[in-house]
Amino acid sequence: MSDLLERLRTGLPPEALITDPDVTASYAHDMASFCAAGTPAVVVLPRTVEQVQHVMRTATALRVPVVPQGARTGLSGAANASDGCIVLSLVKMDRILEISPVDRIAVVEPGVINAVLSRAVNEHGLYYPPDPSSWETCTIGGNIGTASGGLCCVKYGVTAEYVLGLDVVLADGRLLTTGRRTAKGVAGYDLTRLLVGSEGSLGIVVKAVLALKPQPPQQLVLAAEFPSAAAACDAVCRIMERGHTPSLLELMDRTTVRAVNKLASMGLPETTEALLLCAFDTPDPAPDLAAVGALCTAAGATEVVPADNPAESELLLQARRMSLPALEAVRSATMIDDVCVPRSRLGEMLAGTAAIAEEYGLTIGVCSHAGDGNTHPVVCFDHTDPDESRRARESFDAIMALGLELGGTITGEHGVGVLKKEWLARELGETGIALQRGIKAAFDPLGLLNPGKLF
Amino acid sequence: MSDLLERLRTGLPPEALITDPDVTASYAHDMASFCAAGTPAVVVLPRTVEQVQHVMRTATALRVPVVPQGARTGLSGAANASDGCIVLSLVKMDRILEISPVDRIAVVEPGVINAVLSRAVNEHGLYYPPDPSSWETCTIGGNIGTASGGLCCVKYGVTAEYVLGLDVVLADGRLLTTGRRTAKGVAGYDLTRLLVGSEGSLGIVVKAVLALKPQPPQQLVLAAEFPSAAAACDAVCRIMERGHTPSLLELMDRTTVRAVNKLASMGLPETTEALLLCAFDTPDPAPDLAAVGALCTAAGATEVVPADNPAESELLLQARRMSLPALEAVRSATMIDDVCVPRSRLGEMLAGTAAIAEEYGLTIGVCSHAGDGNTHPVVCFDHTDPDESRRARESFDAIMALGLELGGTITGEHGVGVLKKEWLARELGETGIALQRGIKAAFDPLGLLNPGKLF
Repeated sequence: MSDLLERLRTGLPPEALITDPDVTASYAHDMASFCAAGTPAVVVLPRTVEQVQHVMRTATALRVPVVPQGARTGLSGAANASDGCIVLSLVKMDRILEISPVDRIAVVEPGVINAVLSRAVNEHGLYYPPDPSSWETCTIGGNIGTASGGLCCVKYGVTAEYVLGLDVVLADGRLLTTGRRTAKGVAGYDLTRLLVGSEGSLGIVVKAVLALKPQPPQQLVLAAEFPSAAAACDAVCRIMERGHTPSLLELMDRTTVRAVNKLASMGLPETTEALLLCAFDTPDPAPDLAAVGALCTAAGATEVVPADNPAESELLLQARRMSLPALEAVRSATMIDDVCVPRSRLGEMLAGTAAIAEEYGLTIGVCSHAGDGNTHPVVCFDHTDPDESRRARESFDAIMALGLELGGTITGEHGVGVLKKEWLARELGETGIALQRGIKAAFDPLGLLNPGKLF
Repeated sequence: MSDLLERLRTGLPPEALITDPDVTASYAHDMASFCAAGTPAVVVLPRTVEQVQHVMRTATALRVPVVPQGARTGLSGAANASDGCIVLSLVKMDRILEISPVDRIAVVEPGVINAVLSRAVNEHGLYYPPDPSSWETCTIGGNIGTASGGLCCVKYGVTAEYVLGLDVVLADGRLLTTGRRTAKGVAGYDLTRLLVGSEGSLGIVVKAVLALKPQPPQQLVLAAEFPSAAAACDAVCRIMERGHTPSLLELMDRTTVRAVNKLASMGLPETTEALLLCAFDTPDPAPDLAAVGALCTAAGATEVVPADNPAESELLLQARRMSLPALEAVRSATMIDDVCVPRSRLGEMLAGTAAIAEEYGLTIGVCSHAGDGNTHPVVCFDHTDPDESRRARESFDAIMALGLELGGTITGEHGVGVLKKEWLARELGETGIALQRGIKAAFDPLGLLNPGKLF
């Protein structure tokens, strides 16, 4: 231990090392409740690539595990410390190195906050789409580690679509550059995409080349109330089947709508069974909004209200973004699921989730990126009640089993971490897991990078 | 050898095995001239996944290398046979298994022709964007193997963007399923993207889940003549900088324009130094076309002609698609480069290529996916002239060196194959190549899949 600190000190300034146990304890876990977290030996906050290399060389020399961290807003425990590890926080490497409107790229360090980058590129008429709900605080490095999604995905895809190239410090301290800063490139295996979503288990991202889009017009949102989740899902399928390309297509169930009203008096319709939000960010959204309104009505919507202006639209989005905190206020604790099914099966997923809530006697609020078939069932429970906690855990698992049964995945955008390790093995099967382990061994033969995560 | 055939016969119908050396010889290579190709021991044409598994189990048992092939339209020798190998042609596995307008996916076997799929999904109001120039004959499996691009990429990206999930037969015959049929998913390392562009070196793709887009309106093309390549590149940068999203943005140099006129009397402007084609496929392309026309004029265009209708637009595209055959008719042989640079460096790339043509005393025609910064310099030479052939090879290499110097890649969309193996090592560096080899070993420890390709 003192050997570890001594060696780390030779390549790091004093302020980059935290050893006070009261402070290091605060780095022990991310936002996933109920995931095991160990006690770090030390927290390091490097500011340069060389410092990261020094940390990894030290870790390799002494065989000390390393847990990389961004803002710890993750929901799967992927950033949770293991006992005696070095927590490697990248938050101080937070420079935007370049923004190029001609090449439509940004080059950033991993600690840049998502919202900071978004606003910086906006000033150049550019747009960085990935917008996880934690976008005001989460880091680009964390987004890359977990391949984050958000509301934008139905039109713009996930973080992976925007990562062109990476600089990565490997477990032994070598620096690897992957990918490109060109629009296209197929030179060799796509290591960039392999690293995106690898949850810090293959290397430490120290620089990223990100693709940008032109800034679209501000979106206009239509809200539609439905008498049932089934009718709302029917509308979602019709909208997508007819070839519309909404910039978001979100669904809040009755539990979520009421929770949001309770938390923030947003004036959402209390009696609706399902509230669908659909937006377009095209130069002329009117024809799409009218057509979508008609499809909603045909699918049984009782009320269809297109927002008149971007400000009204923004209010509706705020209500949607409030879903998670609102559901967190329902009981003392929550477990947030992240099942994604083919959108044609979304109705079955929601019906099945309601049945699971009934069966286990729990409140489960569901907000969905409906256009993606990605649902976030939030199991609300009292964590001081052992029986309710047990039922919560069981219902959480039942929801994932249902997702797999419907041809879906256990995680659309939150990642695996420690929360879903067993489920990853179920989804990928023996052959898939064996190959994933083979890749891990090729990058990190000593198994020092974020051990105990994924598999 | 007779043991190999005997074993293969136990799991394959007679018509799936070709042993006649006159016929097997025709499977020896793809469209890359001047790449070494060996003599296959046998060609197999399986129709089922089980037959592919049988072939791979046999190959593993007898340690026989396997070279997977689609339509052999590749330009890098990635499908070239090695001596004594099994050529595994997937062209008979050519069924479209499913098209879902709600989920916006198609599920296909690898032998489906790109154009066949494109037309089939069009009938459902859907669009499969990847459109390599060989799209009328190339297979989806081949497109996945080489991560093909095309004219669509500036707006719609490359093949990789459209592959959601794969069924893959591994070297030892095990069946691996990767990815998903959902819009999103982040369960474990992204093996799907790792397999795309792996040129058959990691496994045999036997099924693919492909993402589809809604069919856009027919595009309208604007043509602009420029007095210099530099002015045309300036226009390209301005168009992209201003936030336009063309559905194609192509550049033909004087040599290419003249070659196309000579081959097909297309009536392109003989005296222009650079012809830029820019299209939009939005519901109302007029404002974009007008703005782009003005930007072209500001950049020095001598003539700006927006096509009046889709038929005229289609003619211009046909001329563009004729570039390669036209340049192939200039001398007895060609070598086709595929360098991609950041689009801000495109002008330097074209100027440098012209200087290389001058230096080596060769005709090099260049057609570019200019919006991507992806250039195809086509070195025209007399292959019966040893000195000219040597200069052709040297100029080909000089072009790749220039591309790397400008921050680009040696291959934007054609892949590495045998043609660019040495160059791959230069682009990726020692660490990159070591990791690629590690991944290869995890998938194919005996090195039986497409040996001698990539690295």
